[in-house]
Amino acid sequence: MHALEMISRHPEVRTFPVHGVDAIAACVEACFDCAQACTACADACLGEEAVADLRRCIRLNLDCAALCSATAEIGSRRTHPNLALLRKVLETCAEACSICQAECARHASMHDHCRICAEACAACEQACRAAIVAGELP
Amino acid sequence: MHALEMISRHPEVRTFPVHGVDAIAACVEACFDCAQACTACADACLGEEAVADLRRCIRLNLDCAALCSATAEIGSRRTHPNLALLRKVLETCAEACSICQAECARHASMHDHCRICAEACAACEQACRAAIVAGELP
Amino acid sequence: MHALEMISRHPEVRTFPVHGVDAIAACVEACFDCAQACTACADACLGEEAVADLRRCIRLNLDCAALCSATAEIGSRRTHPNLALLRKVLETCAEACSICQAECARHASMHDHCRICAEACAACEQACRAAIVAGELP
Amino acid sequence: MHALEMISRHPEVRTFPVHGVDAIAACVEACFDCAQACTACADACLGEEAVADLRRCIRLNLDCAALCSATAEIGSRRTHPNLALLRKVLETCAEACSICQAECARHASMHDHCRICAEACAACEQACRAAIVAGELP
Repeated sequence: MHALEMISRHPEVRTFPVHGVDAIAACVEACFDCAQACTACADACLGEEAVADLRRCIRLNLDCAALCSATAEIGSRRTHPNLALLRKVLETCAEACSICQAECARHASMHDHCRICAEACAACEQACRAAIVAGELP
Repeated sequence: MHALEMISRHPEVRTFPVHGVDAIAACVEACFDCAQACTACADACLGEEAVADLRRCIRLNLDCAALCSATAEIGSRRTHPNLALLRKVLETCAEACSICQAECARHASMHDHCRICAEACAACEQACRAAIVAGELP
Repeated sequence: MHALEMISRHPEVRTFPVHGVDAIAACVEACFDCAQACTACADACLGEEAVADLRRCIRLNLDCAALCSATAEIGSRRTHPNLALLRKVLETCAEACSICQAECARHASMHDHCRICAEACAACEQACRAAIVAGELP
Repeated sequence: MHALEMISRHPEVRTFPVHGVDAIAACVEACFDCAQACTACADACLGEEAVADLRRCIRLNLDCAALCSATAEIGSRRTHPNLALLRKVLETCAEACSICQAECARHASMHDHCRICAEACAACEQACRAAIVAGELP
């Protein structure tokens, strides 16, 4: 992905050193990866024989994908950022990832897609929290 | 829109009385309305001669639209809801609406699209906060 | 919803009469309604005891919601529109609505949410096709 | 990204050999990359002094991002796929990428973000067309 390359070409980022550009770019990429994994995991769960036991996983996957997509989009922007809002968005996304990770982990030994998705969720939660720290978000 | 009709046909909502179904359905509809208004306002600002003065408005419109869309999607679901996450999502959306409303209001006397968008943002913020109260979200 | 009010405030639409503004605004609103109905129908199907029989319905609901959301967003814009692309987007959305409508209709007698969703899909397909005609899209 | 890993763990893909899984996974990843590049390019254009000359680029970037996101989501699913619809979605996405690529290329010598975004659009268009061929989509 080109997130870091793109964000570092923004006119304001070119001109002024910005805290945490690497971390927010890594977070944006983790959000896209997690959105993909969660979308695919919801769909794979839907295709499993035991779909009835995977309802909660599907629901949380879909919510996590929606929040990761919105976060990736908002995190990709540098024009007139509202840092307090960005922090709230990253925290909410991290929370969704954490909840989805815990549910996917429960099915990880049965379903490879849940195991991989749990890893993507854990990485995304960590990347969101790292972007909050590195960006010194208020 | 059919949000209330749809949500009240969910198997769990049919079976158990749920707090705040009316409020969450109204919130979902307000989120879609606000997403539309913000998307159209960003685009109308982009078409104005004075686009350079409307950069912040465009940015906040796009962020608000992304969060309203995610909130409308998540709020439309009733299967295994995570109420703490739903509360965080609604609060973050309300915050985005509040910030976007304030910016649009600054241009309301110049641009009708900003005036109408500010109204849609105010209504959506209120609907998100009402859904938190009516749904007794933790 | 404020789609017509917003679109008719766009600087280019204010200045030059545009073919089919009413039809595209109606289409945008139908797309948001259909995105909501499909999102809620997928979730209600997931909550039904017979979820295993509703897999195809859930899948098509989610695809239809994704396309309706993208179409509503793109249709809300008037700055430098690419009319040939808009036509392709509207046709693809109409196709998704048609396929989803047919599947929902199969479950309409069993599930009220499928019946209402089939109606929303049919209305959205019609609104997309009407916007192509009224907008004289190439 | 984990697109290929996730899609190849789907229960139907595990059981039956599927044409073009590699190509659709590559397409999904290219769509996410292009959505990110287009979102960031629209925002960087908005931050440029010459924003008024970049209106068309911003508009096409936003449309391309919306279609790439929807395509990435739909392409990530394997449960009961409608192959004719998938083909239409991929074709529409390829068309959006092609139009956005041409516009970004016009500004590539002035703006690095446009140059990189044009590359991401070209790669995504090619990946969509390759997925249609490899998946033998009707």
